[in-house]
Amino acid sequence: MAGKTLSARLIEDHLVEGRARAGEEIALRMDQALLQDILGTLVMLELEAMGVERAVPQPTVQYIDHDLVQQGPLTADAHRFLKSACERFGIWYSGPGNGISHPVHMEHFGVPGQSLVGSDSHTTAAGSLGMLAIGAGGIEVALAIAGEPLVLQMPRIWGVELTGHLPEWVSARDVALELLRRHGVAGAKNCILEFYGPGVASLSAMDRHIIANMGTEMGATTSVFPSDDNTRRFLAARGRETVWQPLCADSDCVYDLHEQIDLSALEPLIALPSSPGNVVPVTEAVGAPVYQSYIGSSGCPGYSEFATVAGILDDRPSAEGVSLDINPSTRQVLGAMIESGALARLVQAGARIHQAGCNGCIGMGQAPAQGQNSLRTVPRNFPGRSGTPEDSVFLCSAETAAASAITGTITDPRTLDIAYPRVAEPDRLPAADAGLKAPAGLRGAARPELAISDNTPPLPALQPLPDSLDVPILLTVGDDISTDDIMPAGTAIPYWCNVHASARFLFAPIDAGYPEKAADVVDAGGHAIVGGDNYGQGSSRENAALVPALQGLKIVVARSFARLHWQNLVCFGVLPLSPADETAARRLEAGGRLRFDDIHGQLAAGNTVTAHLDGDPIALVHELTDRQRELLRMGGVINRIKQQRIEADGAA
Amino acid sequence: MAGKTLSARLIEDHLVEGRARAGEEIALRMDQALLQDILGTLVMLELEAMGVERAVPQPTVQYIDHDLVQQGPLTADAHRFLKSACERFGIWYSGPGNGISHPVHMEHFGVPGQSLVGSDSHTTAAGSLGMLAIGAGGIEVALAIAGEPLVLQMPRIWGVELTGHLPEWVSARDVALELLRRHGVAGAKNCILEFYGPGVASLSAMDRHIIANMGTEMGATTSVFPSDDNTRRFLAARGRETVWQPLCADSDCVYDLHEQIDLSALEPLIALPSSPGNVVPVTEAVGAPVYQSYIGSSGCPGYSEFATVAGILDDRPSAEGVSLDINPSTRQVLGAMIESGALARLVQAGARIHQAGCNGCIGMGQAPAQGQNSLRTVPRNFPGRSGTPEDSVFLCSAETAAASAITGTITDPRTLDIAYPRVAEPDRLPAADAGLKAPAGLRGAARPELAISDNTPPLPALQPLPDSLDVPILLTVGDDISTDDIMPAGTAIPYWCNVHASARFLFAPIDAGYPEKAADVVDAGGHAIVGGDNYGQGSSRENAALVPALQGLKIVVARSFARLHWQNLVCFGVLPLSPADETAARRLEAGGRLRFDDIHGQLAAGNTVTAHLDGDPIALVHELTDRQRELLRMGGVINRIKQQRIEADGAA
Repeated sequence: MAGKTLSARLIEDHLVEGRARAGEEIALRMDQALLQDILGTLVMLELEAMGVERAVPQPTVQYIDHDLVQQGPLTADAHRFLKSACERFGIWYSGPGNGISHPVHMEHFGVPGQSLVGSDSHTTAAGSLGMLAIGAGGIEVALAIAGEPLVLQMPRIWGVELTGHLPEWVSARDVALELLRRHGVAGAKNCILEFYGPGVASLSAMDRHIIANMGTEMGATTSVFPSDDNTRRFLAARGRETVWQPLCADSDCVYDLHEQIDLSALEPLIALPSSPGNVVPVTEAVGAPVYQSYIGSSGCPGYSEFATVAGILDDRPSAEGVSLDINPSTRQVLGAMIESGALARLVQAGARIHQAGCNGCIGMGQAPAQGQNSLRTVPRNFPGRSGTPEDSVFLCSAETAAASAITGTITDPRTLDIAYPRVAEPDRLPAADAGLKAPAGLRGAARPELAISDNTPPLPALQPLPDSLDVPILLTVGDDISTDDIMPAGTAIPYWCNVHASARFLFAPIDAGYPEKAADVVDAGGHAIVGGDNYGQGSSRENAALVPALQGLKIVVARSFARLHWQNLVCFGVLPLSPADETAARRLEAGGRLRFDDIHGQLAAGNTVTAHLDGDPIALVHELTDRQRELLRMGGVINRIKQQRIEADGAA
Repeated sequence: MAGKTLSARLIEDHLVEGRARAGEEIALRMDQALLQDILGTLVMLELEAMGVERAVPQPTVQYIDHDLVQQGPLTADAHRFLKSACERFGIWYSGPGNGISHPVHMEHFGVPGQSLVGSDSHTTAAGSLGMLAIGAGGIEVALAIAGEPLVLQMPRIWGVELTGHLPEWVSARDVALELLRRHGVAGAKNCILEFYGPGVASLSAMDRHIIANMGTEMGATTSVFPSDDNTRRFLAARGRETVWQPLCADSDCVYDLHEQIDLSALEPLIALPSSPGNVVPVTEAVGAPVYQSYIGSSGCPGYSEFATVAGILDDRPSAEGVSLDINPSTRQVLGAMIESGALARLVQAGARIHQAGCNGCIGMGQAPAQGQNSLRTVPRNFPGRSGTPEDSVFLCSAETAAASAITGTITDPRTLDIAYPRVAEPDRLPAADAGLKAPAGLRGAARPELAISDNTPPLPALQPLPDSLDVPILLTVGDDISTDDIMPAGTAIPYWCNVHASARFLFAPIDAGYPEKAADVVDAGGHAIVGGDNYGQGSSRENAALVPALQGLKIVVARSFARLHWQNLVCFGVLPLSPADETAARRLEAGGRLRFDDIHGQLAAGNTVTAHLDGDPIALVHELTDRQRELLRMGGVINRIKQQRIEADGAA
């Protein structure tokens, strides 16, 4: 029998249900959980609605990293709410200015061999330390915090063998971009990218973070690196060597898929606007004028990246009119930048130094001028994500961004006539725990109350899916509707914690009249939506399912669903169906009224459901598991957990 | 004959018209000019509308310091527009991240004995170096840039004698607050505050900046300090000692008004919400919980202020839940903070480090939570200026803000059980000219074009004030209406460069229906506004006059006007009047229609104008000079300069 991959071993260590065979549903115990701020508020309200008293995974950590601009009071109100929720539920609180969840979590909480679930798709970055780290919808994280296992489809394990070592001017960002160049933005769907081979040892833990972070851009479930001497060194530099253990795949293991990258053969790469998949060699893009060079984000969080930029800019100011935006990733990295002189050199070179956090990477400030080129070390360049509707964002390495800042045009960093400033991670980083607060022990003490404001109202109860329904189709949409289309970001973000106030933004880019139409029929039994292929793609934001459900959405019939949104719909009691054939799909596009009889009986009987569209029968199909059908009967997971707790209390 | 005050000598050196007698109109040559970004765009459009080719005062400097958040593309578009305008008009460009205009100007361009006009009310801060520095409306700065003298009423000279020296834990902010405590927010109207006496030598140039900056909050025309050894030391630390000269008042001079402050007797002071005039000893406010401690702004820009905060927080983290917001004032100060270790200590203490600039001081980010106390070292705490409508902002010293950050409640810094960390200004500051661009010589070269966007439309022409008017009073407001009430900041700022788009924000805090009502009657001849005392107080933003004028505002009848706004109204062809007596004032408060006949004849005939309110005669008064009456006839200064240039070109 062949040896085990590291991924298989990590899964086996956390498996509480199912068999670890690709494609089958498995349930995994989560040792740790993390939340970011703009989705954390809803998770806290869900925990309250479920009756949860104390977070089970320890640590669970709430990070304030996304919405730091505070343009108006709602942001600071939300921070205060989250802090109170941390005290109530026994959760760590990492305040604004501490930095981006992923690198901060690595620094303070990363433990090789442990599992982690986070309400952010880049949670995967912790795979850099040999963790099993998975991004999920907020409600799934809420369930994990309540002590439930994380349910997912067993992925295929994709072995990526690294050989050689990176040439000068080529860095971990280029490794990530090379994978995207080869396989595109959906190339690793339902896969774990497991890195191994002699080249791994040449990459620091933060290099690995960069690669594991960007695996998400390929649709990977997660990425996993071995835990080795570099891992130990990373932990030791933060005074946490005791949590280290060596971890690697058995040398005779067999991967489901296989890939080889010769690091020595890589060159600087760049993703052209407006997809992380549009990767070409930098040489093909040189010469275009640059408005902005943006350094930072979870896609480029290491001290050495910032120090390299400082080394490149040493005595060479950024070009006139280039906005050189430096976004330190964490308080600790900022401290190290100050200590080493890197920050002084950046200030000298004309850089703008921003507070530690996600910032412009998620469109919170630093929006580029219209039609002007922005070079960024961030994970994503989806259209408009920068905050500028007509943006032109390129993804590249810190080296390429720095070289281009000097010349004012996109530049292959190898053509700078200087020695490559190779920077090592420091042996010891300055402490940075001032903004990090451990949960107090609660034994014997009264539980703190939530600092509720008008903008954080409690969640209303969701109703079970009735056995019979007769509802109008309020909206018919095309293919690739994203969760950004369903629940917009930008100026709507401060209202995400408020399921009532955020309802007015629903489907705003598609049909601004939707919220009102939904409200009109909510008391008459609700409504249905008809979608095309890949309905609900993009970010995992659960409010794209929760808020429509509260507005009376009962059924979505789409040709196909994006996985996370499909799960979110079921979690909040909305039935996701697909037309059984092309004829049914065409008929649905015309709209009308959908009638269902004996829904729960039909769902249990098989994969086909017969409904009536304007009185005529129509065949629909579903892929629900028994567990999911039960959720629909109960009106979603919040009701289920609440019920379990009441029963447990009754038994005790 | 008695000797001269320093102010009188500075005025005499720059007087090109009028007699320097208190209350008479004088015209002063301006050696230098400065612009900030959110008003600079309009000034550039005005220069273009006037036909100006090259800035006369050298240096003229455009600073990008107010709107740095870049929430959407409009901000970066405006920065690019301003950079192109600097190239077109021969103006220095200080890019985003360089810091706040006032301290940066002091560092790089301050010259004792020179005059300076700036489109920002805190331009007065340069009085700290023995300059005659005056804040004015953007249009007045545009005129100065076009080579016109600055016209103003000769102020009274108010000698403020400083004796003693500041005790530990008491700093220059407390001197400024003490003056406000004694005289309130209008106490120095039409005065120059001239500081002298043995206590002056104990204040660094930056201490003097703090005091001169806050003179604006008392309504002072400007503040003036002697140029002495501390001035020389400040300039020398920046490699600019050669521009220094000693300047002081004659010892036998006589001041119009007199004041004495014993520095040794001062204690820590604090302005309660929501006026800089609500000053009490900190001891009267101790114990209130603090959400935010905000350090920075032109009201507290010195390196030593930040270093003092770092010294106080050394090994003492900020209290849980307190947002400790550090806003470095300039690139140079940030560089010095890094060099000395102050920044490292602040990061260690849990501070959030923001980019150098005005930031939250003018509501661009860092808005506090609702109803939570924010302690700030900024010049102003007008209601809502922080970006939070129901804010609770206190003004205090860096020492008080730091002490309160440690305890989490408002704290008298003297009660901290530690030694006072007395900090000296460094002898040599790091260079910081990467983001500062000198104008190119234009001789022989084609003039660069403006980088116009949809959001920087050219200014429409203003119409002359007609001889007869019959207009409705659309708005009746109370006392102390600020320019923030007339043209809000915050989310409106990115539209300030667009006179069409910004109109929808006019009077939003008072009557959101005003823009629509104005638009309804614009073709029927326009409208009037009735105000109370001190109408148009606060910031010098000229769009609070220009945009209403473009919306048809013809007349403002107020009990009294803030000087800058009164001038701005006239500059854009709006007639400012006051009721002749209490009866007239009361009648106007009820609203109605105002009819004027033979306006220009009446204005020329004397100080009284008879109008008709709903048909009945009403007596009004004005204080217009001949020059100003001529402006009203021409529809404002832009038309006048344009006409002059056309005539000059015709003659040449």
